[in-house]
Amino acid sequence: MVVSLQKKPSHEVVIIGGGFGGLYAAKALANTNVNVTLIDKRNFHLFQPLLYQVATGTLSPADISAPLRSVFSKSKNTKVLLGEVNNIDPKAQKVIMGDEVIPYDTLIVATGANHSYFGKDNWKEFAPGLKTVEDAIEMRRRIFSAFEAAEKETDPVKRRAFLTFVLVGGGPTGVELAGAIAELAYKTLQEDFRNINTSETRVLLLQGGDRILPHIAPELSQAAAAALQKLGVVIHTNTRVTNIENDIVTFKQDGELIEISSKTILWAAGVQGSTLGRILAERTDVECDHAGRVIVEPNLTIKGYKNIFVIGDLANFSHQNGKPLPGVAPVAKQQGEYVGGLIQLRLQGHTLPEFHYTDVGSLAMIGQNLAVVDLGFIKLTGFLAWVFWLIIHIYFLIEFDTKLVVVIQWAWNYITRNRRSRLITGKEAFVKPQTVNNSSNSPTTEKKQPVKL
Amino acid sequence: MVVSLQKKPSHEVVIIGGGFGGLYAAKALANTNVNVTLIDKRNFHLFQPLLYQVATGTLSPADISAPLRSVFSKSKNTKVLLGEVNNIDPKAQKVIMGDEVIPYDTLIVATGANHSYFGKDNWKEFAPGLKTVEDAIEMRRRIFSAFEAAEKETDPVKRRAFLTFVLVGGGPTGVELAGAIAELAYKTLQEDFRNINTSETRVLLLQGGDRILPHIAPELSQAAAAALQKLGVVIHTNTRVTNIENDIVTFKQDGELIEISSKTILWAAGVQGSTLGRILAERTDVECDHAGRVIVEPNLTIKGYKNIFVIGDLANFSHQNGKPLPGVAPVAKQQGEYVGGLIQLRLQGHTLPEFHYTDVGSLAMIGQNLAVVDLGFIKLTGFLAWVFWLIIHIYFLIEFDTKLVVVIQWAWNYITRNRRSRLITGKEAFVKPQTVNNSSNSPTTEKKQPVKL
Repeated sequence: MVVSLQKKPSHEVVIIGGGFGGLYAAKALANTNVNVTLIDKRNFHLFQPLLYQVATGTLSPADISAPLRSVFSKSKNTKVLLGEVNNIDPKAQKVIMGDEVIPYDTLIVATGANHSYFGKDNWKEFAPGLKTVEDAIEMRRRIFSAFEAAEKETDPVKRRAFLTFVLVGGGPTGVELAGAIAELAYKTLQEDFRNINTSETRVLLLQGGDRILPHIAPELSQAAAAALQKLGVVIHTNTRVTNIENDIVTFKQDGELIEISSKTILWAAGVQGSTLGRILAERTDVECDHAGRVIVEPNLTIKGYKNIFVIGDLANFSHQNGKPLPGVAPVAKQQGEYVGGLIQLRLQGHTLPEFHYTDVGSLAMIGQNLAVVDLGFIKLTGFLAWVFWLIIHIYFLIEFDTKLVVVIQWAWNYITRNRRSRLITGKEAFVKPQTVNNSSNSPTTEKKQPVKL
Repeated sequence: MVVSLQKKPSHEVVIIGGGFGGLYAAKALANTNVNVTLIDKRNFHLFQPLLYQVATGTLSPADISAPLRSVFSKSKNTKVLLGEVNNIDPKAQKVIMGDEVIPYDTLIVATGANHSYFGKDNWKEFAPGLKTVEDAIEMRRRIFSAFEAAEKETDPVKRRAFLTFVLVGGGPTGVELAGAIAELAYKTLQEDFRNINTSETRVLLLQGGDRILPHIAPELSQAAAAALQKLGVVIHTNTRVTNIENDIVTFKQDGELIEISSKTILWAAGVQGSTLGRILAERTDVECDHAGRVIVEPNLTIKGYKNIFVIGDLANFSHQNGKPLPGVAPVAKQQGEYVGGLIQLRLQGHTLPEFHYTDVGSLAMIGQNLAVVDLGFIKLTGFLAWVFWLIIHIYFLIEFDTKLVVVIQWAWNYITRNRRSRLITGKEAFVKPQTVNNSSNSPTTEKKQPVKL
């Protein structure tokens, strides 16, 4: 018979945020002799890289989510707390959540990033972004409602606006959304309508820089662009969006102003560190960069506070090559694991060398059979890259919860080219015919040489 | 070489509602020489009998939905129209949808039923029902938020209200919800919380009549009640709910008034025919029954209008044994198929004998391994009934869209006892601590002998 003595763990670790950073930090500390409190606004971890597949009707939100309580149900030293932290008191070592005050010995802040409209918050209404499940459901509603409205619309100018999709931002999200919408329009929905020909759909991808997917090798950018164009996406590089209002996006390209009338403008451009990062920086006199990311020390703590870590999208870690690490899942995951390990070692009187990111490469899905993969030493495009993309994502999905269902869903979608999750749901789900604004005030056709649109 | 002459189909069939009735009528008319317009408020058919599994975190909405356009994409004589019909002009043979007027030669009205609070519409806020995807998401939010709030609550009286779930109505929906919530509380969530013991949860099922599932054989009712009680559900029969307000449900039982304080009161009691039924009845001088169902002729037309059919939950068909057919999927399906067939035959100058419902039996799921099945000639309970329930539902799901994924999901949930779809999402998804009302005005504990609660 084994007699277990009640050992009271003394070290309190509070983790704010259940994204990749917070989740992997908590996993690294699971079933150790520290007390972990994982705080999140939501009751689930979201596999954000696949959110675009929810927005375009391939997957359901639950397919890419894992209930936080269920992830940590077996780890009795881990407590999941639902709520929103609105302040941190670094001197008193306390986290404030409304009326609740939670003391900590070590704090990990991993609250990620939000959209940034570069100060033009009025654009948000016309060009929603993609960060939460609700964002994805709203995007899905807009995309599928646009086709429905086009089917009903008899005015060809208005119908064109309904069949025009503009993606602002040529990073992975913009590229993946553009590819998915093009496949919807030119393949999946082809047989479904009676009044419109979905082939008349225009999918425009606007990118500020001179190439899409700037974080990968130029030859892969080129391959991705070619693949997207083959799918039917029109790419505009070197553009600068100057206005988004009343379903019209205005951008500058080669000195010329172009206006596009579109009922579905989607934002995949800027992000900025979450508000809690700014609050923490103010309370600790630590610097933030221009994107609101907290500047961290080589071991991911912040200056002057060796018991406060900032990780993931919220952290600016530029000790490797002077450039901050990108806001992607693998960075957050490795940082979470590093911090979890460091906390344990510290309690034993040891420490760790500074954090080093092992680049696992970049990849982006473009469409069925099409992806680009940049592993540094090897670059893949086309079908092979797509298979690689699948394997990587399945591996990640399976790691924390068996998402066998997702794999089968993908296989099924692949065979049938169907989108089974294309529900128009939510508050505004009952389609009301949208109206294009009066053309005298807001032009519904392009002006000033809309070359090659 | 085959020369196809453009043959203009002349007969216009308009179907209002894409539930089981409308869907199967449209399927019966697919690829025939009539023109079919299927109108629905939503862009998908919903497999309503499984909605309770969305509400309790087992399935996602897309798992039990089929996009209407995709169901009929290959049927070129079928047009799907999204919108809400607000009037019918039976003399002019027109359906009115906002500004749109749609002429018909034959009309099929299949708009189903809504909740009925027996005139107490103010109860709705405190006791939502389960008819739409949004209802299910809201119910899911309430159920899982209640456990979260209980985890945070320190006052034992308030905590008890959070851990009390009251189902009003002992029909299939109430029974299935009660079973699923009991399994959640006593099995699935058992390990997930740190402050509460989910075994302290109370699940109460209130039934007006003297037994639950009154539509099936008494011995099966009894078996279902025993199975539910074994799961931990407390059943109150012969009750009459007198009030639902401020998270308190008041009911009469054996002449005594009982008040239960519960943060999650769910409505599974009355239904009434949809508004369009009433409008149609007014415009055609046809009678409605007390539940707002339209009285139909033996061939499912309405009196005086041989080109207007009413089918499914909206119809009162009592020609078989004087009692109206129940509002269940098999009735709607058979009526849809009958009407589809009759319309085709009529165009060839023939007709059909009056509609006859072939009773396929009744079944209800109680929990994992537990169901009751009443086929008339055979009655099953327990595991065998559960397997039968599974097979029947898989068969129905597969019939119009391959829902292989659902089957795998069920298998997986069965093995792991997990609820992967337990996301708290939507407008009010970010948990704010709920408050129980001041006990001076609204008691938070039961009064007057709350025997055996």
